[in-house]
Amino acid sequence: MIEPDFKKMEITIVGLGLIGGSLAKALAKLKPRKIWAVDKDEQVIRKAQELGIIERGFTNGHLPLRSSDLVILALYPGATVDFVKQYLEDFKPGALLTDTAGIKQEVVNAIQDFLRPDLDFIGGHPLAGKEHSGFDFSAADIFNGANYILTPVAQNKADNVEMLKAIIKKIGCKEPVQMSPEEHDNIIALTSQLPHVIAASLVNSSQVDNIEYLCGGSFRDATRVAPMNVQLWCELLLKNKQNVLTQIDAFVDNISKIKEAIANENQPALAEILKRAGKSAKVIN
Amino acid sequence: MIEPDFKKMEITIVGLGLIGGSLAKALAKLKPRKIWAVDKDEQVIRKAQELGIIERGFTNGHLPLRSSDLVILALYPGATVDFVKQYLEDFKPGALLTDTAGIKQEVVNAIQDFLRPDLDFIGGHPLAGKEHSGFDFSAADIFNGANYILTPVAQNKADNVEMLKAIIKKIGCKEPVQMSPEEHDNIIALTSQLPHVIAASLVNSSQVDNIEYLCGGSFRDATRVAPMNVQLWCELLLKNKQNVLTQIDAFVDNISKIKEAIANENQPALAEILKRAGKSAKVIN
Repeated sequence: MIEPDFKKMEITIVGLGLIGGSLAKALAKLKPRKIWAVDKDEQVIRKAQELGIIERGFTNGHLPLRSSDLVILALYPGATVDFVKQYLEDFKPGALLTDTAGIKQEVVNAIQDFLRPDLDFIGGHPLAGKEHSGFDFSAADIFNGANYILTPVAQNKADNVEMLKAIIKKIGCKEPVQMSPEEHDNIIALTSQLPHVIAASLVNSSQVDNIEYLCGGSFRDATRVAPMNVQLWCELLLKNKQNVLTQIDAFVDNISKIKEAIANENQPALAEILKRAGKSAKVIN
Repeated sequence: MIEPDFKKMEITIVGLGLIGGSLAKALAKLKPRKIWAVDKDEQVIRKAQELGIIERGFTNGHLPLRSSDLVILALYPGATVDFVKQYLEDFKPGALLTDTAGIKQEVVNAIQDFLRPDLDFIGGHPLAGKEHSGFDFSAADIFNGANYILTPVAQNKADNVEMLKAIIKKIGCKEPVQMSPEEHDNIIALTSQLPHVIAASLVNSSQVDNIEYLCGGSFRDATRVAPMNVQLWCELLLKNKQNVLTQIDAFVDNISKIKEAIANENQPALAEILKRAGKSAKVIN
């Protein structure tokens, strides 16, 4: 097992939003040699510096990237690709790059297409989040027990994958799961994107006065993620279009089976569906 | 405002399942003159006695009902009606009866039809629960901050409604909301039954190996209630058939709008839907 040597590690985090800010806070506890950050918002940089989370912040990447062994991109999917392209000549030779975008196929394929051969880009996706976006809501503990998917490809160095996995565990996540970018996008359409689509649809069904006094925990839970970062989620859903549509169809098909059983007052069929759900649910929760 | 005099109050709880058991535990803290219970399971009665939550337990209602000022029925909807009918002659003159069934129209109408004129039955529904059923999972704190709906009808005495509201607040619930049984069933199809239908459908969509390492909090939240008490939920869904079908249709209609926006890669339409959901969600969560 590779043990990351934080005393020697120079890290730059690109994007101090909810995820980038939380990563900075979680990594700061591990006392790496340096954490620098790039963000277009000078106020956010100032806040992160004042909190002692980052040593220095920059509004562009030229200077920090030149001396960073590990660069973590915490940007929207399209912006992740754009950033690597824009600063391609600035990365330190041999640097390890990773990202946190919620879709992987488009990001990984695009970056591998133009990446400098000495650099190693490993796609990553922490399954962590909050109902609010932005640095002000970032917190180290969002990674505690969180799932993290890595999508290494043939070009990645095995040692770098192991190193990244070790770092991810150090910030509190579960043992990261590895799969192809294609597989990731397929599965994430079900395990993250569909619940967001459901949450929004359920809230949009609920035009009832005083609903906050009329709902049970089940309703609150199912709608917790409804206040999404709209720009980001439009990008995630549209860039994973086929998988999301497939999952919506499968889900609507399942809900239709329940509907049919209720409409026909078919108690045994309904019981069978609910029983099956209960059994599978035990694995998840 | 009516202040319940617990020192004089003699209570019988019928059904020591998750809700009845939790009510017994919550009420025991208020030190009423007596809490007795009726349950068909002698082992559960013994447990509740050993825990000091109830003074005595019975496997039938004849004796306890004769001396109880307040009878709380914590049974399935059909069983609630059957119990009142079966023991109609045993209730103490002037007693206040209430229930906790998740549908109200059928229960309230049926009971009002044959109730002794000296008795007062007020329908109630605590919006509290857990993923597990049965006395062993019962806990006083499930009512902390929980919503509670009362469905009084013309036959109910105003003082009794106020008394019941005061007791409900004493066990930790929010100010109970009052509405007609019809309104209750209409709203609850959205705020509790639909999320349960969704949770089951989402779990049944998720036949993926190792899904527990691949899902985000959104998926866990939306499926938390999937392990339902199958018998109870079949009864709740089938007895509220029309309202549930209407809510499923409205929800599927909303999900179809998201699907359409994604299929057409219509970013502005998708953004508009997600933005609207986010705004409404702020009221709920």
